[in-house]
Amino acid sequence: MSSIFGNRIRTTVFGESHGEAIGVVVEGLPAGEKIDFEELQKFLQRRAPGRNLYTTQRREADVPEFLSGVKDGVILGSPLAAIIRNKGYNSRDYDELKDVPRPSHADYTAHVKYKGHMDMRGGGPFSGRLTAPLCIAGGIAIQILKKRGVHIGAHIFRIGDISDEGWDPVKVTAEELNSVGNMDFPVISDKKAKEMIDLISKLKEDGDSVGGIIECMAIGIPAGIGGLGSSSVESSISSAMFSVPGIRGIEFGAGFKAAEMHGSEHNDQFEIKDGLIKTITNNAGGVNGGITNGMPLSFKVAVKPTSSIAIPQKSFSLSDLTEKELLISGRHDPCIAVRAVPVIEAVCALVLLDLWEE
Amino acid sequence: MSSIFGNRIRTTVFGESHGEAIGVVVEGLPAGEKIDFEELQKFLQRRAPGRNLYTTQRREADVPEFLSGVKDGVILGSPLAAIIRNKGYNSRDYDELKDVPRPSHADYTAHVKYKGHMDMRGGGPFSGRLTAPLCIAGGIAIQILKKRGVHIGAHIFRIGDISDEGWDPVKVTAEELNSVGNMDFPVISDKKAKEMIDLISKLKEDGDSVGGIIECMAIGIPAGIGGLGSSSVESSISSAMFSVPGIRGIEFGAGFKAAEMHGSEHNDQFEIKDGLIKTITNNAGGVNGGITNGMPLSFKVAVKPTSSIAIPQKSFSLSDLTEKELLISGRHDPCIAVRAVPVIEAVCALVLLDLWEE
Amino acid sequence: MSSIFGNRIRTTVFGESHGEAIGVVVEGLPAGEKIDFEELQKFLQRRAPGRNLYTTQRREADVPEFLSGVKDGVILGSPLAAIIRNKGYNSRDYDELKDVPRPSHADYTAHVKYKGHMDMRGGGPFSGRLTAPLCIAGGIAIQILKKRGVHIGAHIFRIGDISDEGWDPVKVTAEELNSVGNMDFPVISDKKAKEMIDLISKLKEDGDSVGGIIECMAIGIPAGIGGLGSSSVESSISSAMFSVPGIRGIEFGAGFKAAEMHGSEHNDQFEIKDGLIKTITNNAGGVNGGITNGMPLSFKVAVKPTSSIAIPQKSFSLSDLTEKELLISGRHDPCIAVRAVPVIEAVCALVLLDLWEE
Amino acid sequence: MSSIFGNRIRTTVFGESHGEAIGVVVEGLPAGEKIDFEELQKFLQRRAPGRNLYTTQRREADVPEFLSGVKDGVILGSPLAAIIRNKGYNSRDYDELKDVPRPSHADYTAHVKYKGHMDMRGGGPFSGRLTAPLCIAGGIAIQILKKRGVHIGAHIFRIGDISDEGWDPVKVTAEELNSVGNMDFPVISDKKAKEMIDLISKLKEDGDSVGGIIECMAIGIPAGIGGLGSSSVESSISSAMFSVPGIRGIEFGAGFKAAEMHGSEHNDQFEIKDGLIKTITNNAGGVNGGITNGMPLSFKVAVKPTSSIAIPQKSFSLSDLTEKELLISGRHDPCIAVRAVPVIEAVCALVLLDLWEE
Repeated sequence: MSSIFGNRIRTTVFGESHGEAIGVVVEGLPAGEKIDFEELQKFLQRRAPGRNLYTTQRREADVPEFLSGVKDGVILGSPLAAIIRNKGYNSRDYDELKDVPRPSHADYTAHVKYKGHMDMRGGGPFSGRLTAPLCIAGGIAIQILKKRGVHIGAHIFRIGDISDEGWDPVKVTAEELNSVGNMDFPVISDKKAKEMIDLISKLKEDGDSVGGIIECMAIGIPAGIGGLGSSSVESSISSAMFSVPGIRGIEFGAGFKAAEMHGSEHNDQFEIKDGLIKTITNNAGGVNGGITNGMPLSFKVAVKPTSSIAIPQKSFSLSDLTEKELLISGRHDPCIAVRAVPVIEAVCALVLLDLWEE
Repeated sequence: MSSIFGNRIRTTVFGESHGEAIGVVVEGLPAGEKIDFEELQKFLQRRAPGRNLYTTQRREADVPEFLSGVKDGVILGSPLAAIIRNKGYNSRDYDELKDVPRPSHADYTAHVKYKGHMDMRGGGPFSGRLTAPLCIAGGIAIQILKKRGVHIGAHIFRIGDISDEGWDPVKVTAEELNSVGNMDFPVISDKKAKEMIDLISKLKEDGDSVGGIIECMAIGIPAGIGGLGSSSVESSISSAMFSVPGIRGIEFGAGFKAAEMHGSEHNDQFEIKDGLIKTITNNAGGVNGGITNGMPLSFKVAVKPTSSIAIPQKSFSLSDLTEKELLISGRHDPCIAVRAVPVIEAVCALVLLDLWEE
Repeated sequence: MSSIFGNRIRTTVFGESHGEAIGVVVEGLPAGEKIDFEELQKFLQRRAPGRNLYTTQRREADVPEFLSGVKDGVILGSPLAAIIRNKGYNSRDYDELKDVPRPSHADYTAHVKYKGHMDMRGGGPFSGRLTAPLCIAGGIAIQILKKRGVHIGAHIFRIGDISDEGWDPVKVTAEELNSVGNMDFPVISDKKAKEMIDLISKLKEDGDSVGGIIECMAIGIPAGIGGLGSSSVESSISSAMFSVPGIRGIEFGAGFKAAEMHGSEHNDQFEIKDGLIKTITNNAGGVNGGITNGMPLSFKVAVKPTSSIAIPQKSFSLSDLTEKELLISGRHDPCIAVRAVPVIEAVCALVLLDLWEE
Repeated sequence: MSSIFGNRIRTTVFGESHGEAIGVVVEGLPAGEKIDFEELQKFLQRRAPGRNLYTTQRREADVPEFLSGVKDGVILGSPLAAIIRNKGYNSRDYDELKDVPRPSHADYTAHVKYKGHMDMRGGGPFSGRLTAPLCIAGGIAIQILKKRGVHIGAHIFRIGDISDEGWDPVKVTAEELNSVGNMDFPVISDKKAKEMIDLISKLKEDGDSVGGIIECMAIGIPAGIGGLGSSSVESSISSAMFSVPGIRGIEFGAGFKAAEMHGSEHNDQFEIKDGLIKTITNNAGGVNGGITNGMPLSFKVAVKPTSSIAIPQKSFSLSDLTEKELLISGRHDPCIAVRAVPVIEAVCALVLLDLWEE
């Protein structure tokens, strides 16, 4: 029932894609921190639609209006609320879909859960558009963490069968993590970026879509953050990540590869380096027993292919339960993983700040 | 800070591996449900150590004592509490390790978080032993769900590079899911089971270990369970799963494979079958927009190799921060994925019951 | 840290008195319920300032703008968000107070907690103004409960040493409870109302203020709502009530009088009336063991005198810790209890709906 | 549904009066704190039955067994669990009551909520006996707070129409607060104590009972603890207090008297004393805007008369809904307020520690 996550830094997201506005309330942000609005806007632009050819053409400014919790750029300590007005959409594109649920969307499940009352135009509250308020909150968290020496970065690790270079989970640097923020297309290898863009362009022509994997790392987190049970770093991050539309999986450190590894190979043995405790490898992704160990936090999330495709699909009528063929019109990202990259950073930052304050 | 998960069915686990007792408190179980203690004990035996050659030889009865919340086998409605006394361990095996953290265990991170005060003998509260109380709670949840027509099953999907047969996420049956409960080694293919056992036996001789992947499915869940944001089915399940020691990743439906798929291939198109709404494929794993769609719930979790291996490893002294070589003695499962199978079922049941009651 | 209450119906309030806007997010409202906006606005007017002579003259429309969760007057099921823009205030009235905390306000404690960063103009987030968004949420809850046969009413029970007639906690009717909504001054006895108004007018001339007691009752609640421990009806209601500024005490049923009573007098003996289980008296206020018994819910809350008075008071300078005399200017209600009446109804409705849905 | 309170120090109580055991799990206690078990036992004895003539004669040792979270008297940081075995009760006393609910007990409401399945012998989970585990947790919290300079004390402020001397909410000392712990009967004035004991003795002969008021104060709490909305000190304390059986009301500082006061009299004006910020009066009870101001925390709770009286009462049969006369046998405290005194201290300590750690 909850659109909330976090214990100390509680983030509540609200809005429907074609409603009046979308927004976020964040409780528990530390009083006195300054927000760099310009940097925040730059961050939000990374997620915004219409930024380049590879993303949907619906163009919205996504400039948040702050309603509370901040004055003259300084966080007050009271709940911070910010909203973004919805505009630029064409609900007619969606009206005809009302009776015929789109495959792999929440249309059918929302119909059951909310007894047919949900406003599902544009995906309603399940829309990727709701990641914009998440990015407002997360963009602020990123700025706060940066002052504490934490740097977070994410990039597209794979689209289809094309893989980007990965970051080294032991040696990754702040420069590497921060470099993504300036990229037009968040892929490290230029060659791979080009291949991915070619793939996306081709799928766009076909009216089809493709999934992807995003790699996210964070450095500068002290050891000792997280905890037992469901307050583990992995529990907290995964729970928040799966609140992002389209996420199908998450793995920390060696992740699913750990299944094939031997302990002698997987175990992260210790070394003392410049007086600091390090692990030689980082198959744990920076977390042991749910608690950070001071090594880079490292995880990957799988993103499904955009569910809205311009190819006829089998569906049915909610009103008379007969099978129907459905053709979705409108403009859609062929690969939502691209715009999800800053969202993953944002959510990661919110969870880390929450666990840190805990 | 929390060892709790769930909103309506709240499960709190407590205990340290070598403390007085481990236990669980479950709030919100529906009053009037009968517990079949014999079936519960049978379920707990699946997780218990010393059951076969492939698991650790520490032999404990793991018979829970119920302290509250149940009378004459009927759930009262007040918090249910059950404990298991600790015995059969030899703390001397661990005493020498106190100053030298074991790689990939929580020894070092717990030392930082709890300022050196945690009783880490046998892994302390991070021990896999704490999954026993989880299985008490989950075993009861499984029985309650079964009366509602929900069947949950899990099996080893992979150990090392050996893969079991998978279940069909569209057609999987109650018989298939329930069959695992009677297996000595929870693998569907006898041939693959034999190969895996051979691998484990060999690793045991080497003092090494190996990871694994567990596949879990559940059928009979009505559409409409779960919700927005962090109350999504995936958020809820993943958060709970990562509270189980050794889990490194989770994926739902097509999971990480979705990254390589096209929308036209990944989308689960609808069909009406015997008047019921079905999807032709089940790449979503039974969940759209965080809400169940009535198809089988399907997910996989990655389990890391046992961190305790009988091979010298590099570590350091907590007291003087010098590097040390460490050789762990004692008996350990070469593959914790084997005993984790019923734990995954238990946790899945607890989360489903919680979401259902929500 | 939390401005949230409720488990199933979660209400989050945000805003500062002189910030951009105040607002509320309510999660978990049942989909499909219709909101009567006219009735809601009428309800909000009961709390609004400037309604009559006895309340502050700051005049604001307090017309909420709904941003999400509702469409065409129907609750969707997604989080409902509504805001009210701030206007009509004069911050200069407050600017001079910045360094000198007002006695019995949160100025000093907020200064400590938020390290001097909170925007305390007009009371900041501690302002009674924040009860407006509470009334939006609560006004909707009242409408939903009314359809379930629950009627909630509150009136001024005492101001200074003048007491209104009380309601009979056994026989109170829907008509009685609903009648308050139409009163200009929420007091049952016209004679007592006049006396109270005279007292308030006199205090206003003196620049002084006075406290009050509000009595609230609700009928039509089925037996069996609430629960053990902190989910008791009293825990839930009291926790929410003390989030309303100025509340100093709460008592259920016989309340503090119970201290003087004998068990033989206090116990609510049973009778069967028209086939229904009733208690002959209602000293329990409708709750036994934290669970409703079907009798009217009955409680009283004490409201402190308005802290802003036009009389010189002793304070100090936050910057140099020297004692200062302070004279507060601006217009203030001489008795905040008057406008608090609908707020108590609103909060009561929110908690009841939350416990009901639980 | 929850027997839990607290956010950072989460206390879960379980057990039924005549079940196997009662107990408590406390999460989030700070690692490294030492528990003085002797002092804890002395504290528990203050609540224990059979201590003197004025309390019930059921004699139980109430010696807790610690199962986890503590080793060699040091708090580990993992959840602390402790249980007390039930013994010394005679269930036959209660068996006959099963079909006829006792007035002002939870018998009827629990019957509705738990569909007749709750084990209500001795009051089941609603029994005052469940305050014993609360006192284990709270007794530990008291010890931790004492090391931080916080002293908590409570005494009987009134029984029937006999009032004890009150403490001065401005000048109360640690000596005064701690003195109660050594009293056989927690009343400050010897003369009043004697009068109260006489009253109780007489009521005991009559088979009747009486209510009471408990005053609780705490000093040494720094300014700045608590927060907005339902994290206010008053919300947190009241919510926890109403989870204690028999509490009918709570008021902070001037409480219900504030209703009769003028602002000029009620406002706590500031003074600087020895360089410290103080208020001249303390009508706020140490809390402004939900946040502590450094003055003594001061509140009172009303306790109802014992519901079990040896006088015939009107009730009914749950099975056939006919009216019945009921005569309760067994031994009962004529005044539960007496034994509730340390419980109030315990709960106050738990909440303060929770808010402090927040």
